[in-house]
Amino acid sequence: MKLATLRTQSGTAAAAETNSGWALLPYSDIAELLTAGDWRSKAIAAVSAPSGDFVASSQAEFASVLTSPRKIICCGLNYSDHIREMGRALPRHPTLFAKYTDTLTGAHDAIATGGSNSVDWEAELAVIVGAQLTHASEDEASSAIAGYCVANDVSMRDWQKRTLQWFQGKNFTASTPLGPWLTTADEFDSDPHFTVEGWINDERVQCGDTSSLVFPPAQLLSYISGFTTLAPGDVILTGTPGGVGQGMQPPRYANPGDVIRTAASGLGELLNPITV
Amino acid sequence: MKLATLRTQSGTAAAAETNSGWALLPYSDIAELLTAGDWRSKAIAAVSAPSGDFVASSQAEFASVLTSPRKIICCGLNYSDHIREMGRALPRHPTLFAKYTDTLTGAHDAIATGGSNSVDWEAELAVIVGAQLTHASEDEASSAIAGYCVANDVSMRDWQKRTLQWFQGKNFTASTPLGPWLTTADEFDSDPHFTVEGWINDERVQCGDTSSLVFPPAQLLSYISGFTTLAPGDVILTGTPGGVGQGMQPPRYANPGDVIRTAASGLGELLNPITV
Repeated sequence: MKLATLRTQSGTAAAAETNSGWALLPYSDIAELLTAGDWRSKAIAAVSAPSGDFVASSQAEFASVLTSPRKIICCGLNYSDHIREMGRALPRHPTLFAKYTDTLTGAHDAIATGGSNSVDWEAELAVIVGAQLTHASEDEASSAIAGYCVANDVSMRDWQKRTLQWFQGKNFTASTPLGPWLTTADEFDSDPHFTVEGWINDERVQCGDTSSLVFPPAQLLSYISGFTTLAPGDVILTGTPGGVGQGMQPPRYANPGDVIRTAASGLGELLNPITV
Repeated sequence: MKLATLRTQSGTAAAAETNSGWALLPYSDIAELLTAGDWRSKAIAAVSAPSGDFVASSQAEFASVLTSPRKIICCGLNYSDHIREMGRALPRHPTLFAKYTDTLTGAHDAIATGGSNSVDWEAELAVIVGAQLTHASEDEASSAIAGYCVANDVSMRDWQKRTLQWFQGKNFTASTPLGPWLTTADEFDSDPHFTVEGWINDERVQCGDTSSLVFPPAQLLSYISGFTTLAPGDVILTGTPGGVGQGMQPPRYANPGDVIRTAASGLGELLNPITV
């Protein structure tokens, strides 16, 4: 099942995919749906016997899959093939940092440079939490995954590298596309792998397989739940494979007029133009 | 005027100090009061003509001053005297990182080690935002400060030092006391200085004056508003002076049974026992 947050005349609404489009649910976004409990039954009911509004596929405008998550926690340095090619040792612990909710934006929205002169791309698999997790085992964490979607952890490298902490370069308003929809975990086996790809205009610059993650989704959620409680609607970004602009010789960045494309196999695609 | 969030039988409530105690306001915490708009008039009205519940000073139980801020942004490496004594150059940009809301705890609450074996203290001045700020000048930022309170950015150094990003050691659940109350900015001149002190049990280990901040409050808010919007109820922690446990030879940490005391001149005091 696919779940999305669509733009409507009055704001946004959670939606579930049907054969011909999207059935709207009485929640403002997918985080609110996940928080309400028993979300799967509610989505199935909306699809099988639509009682609310309906949006045809061709009319769907995608907001960020979640517009109101409480926590967005990102993992850096997580693709072992990329770490090895850089000559580094595999990390013993995940490198984590936070994004605020207002960094999120829609699958086809423009991303403003915000005055940065080094806007970089980071194609990533996003994991959406569907149940509360505190000191959870990996099995518990695995069962609590509501689903997956695509993200680009767009990074303002000039601001990111001003200090040792990456936070400021990772938290520009509306800089992180998340979408286009959440595909529920029951569509995959218990340990799915995804090919994560990134393009700048028509040039593919990133390609990685999540089978090479040092810390796969369930392990990451279990680790994080050791110091902070995860709750329905929280988002975990799992890191990016090689091929980001700052790793190139010379470094390359996205400029106004460029388009960043991001995809994960079976999960859809993001297409975001860069603007001033 | 002093504003606090008090524990009540049904949860928490915003409160304003009167001559003999606290007049409750119809908001669950001070962040909700600040977000509601025209908060000063509402607080003054509650004090001058109390219509709601009242709590005697001796009965007041302080929750975190804010229980629902959207953003808590912390600055590291901000006391110039401490930076100079460490032989470092003054930074050109503030080092920033994020805390989640559920890290906050009350002025007299116990703080659990959460399994960390290196619980450290960081006495800090906290600045509470009272108006929306986007690309704000320092003057605009200064006018938007609702008030000040005391914080301790308690840090789990083992987790903090596992990776380059401090986030995980700074985000243990209920590890950051914030309070005991917010003193509104109009009680001070436009550029107030505070003496910030920290004790472990009866030994004073930290003492700094905010006049030596590399990035004083208004400058910090202005800088942050350049990449993310600040809103009423957001919290900025301004960094800690020298005297933290990990800087000692040998390093010292707080253990179960110890009590951490934190004060800022004119703003009150936090007293937090450490538990397993």
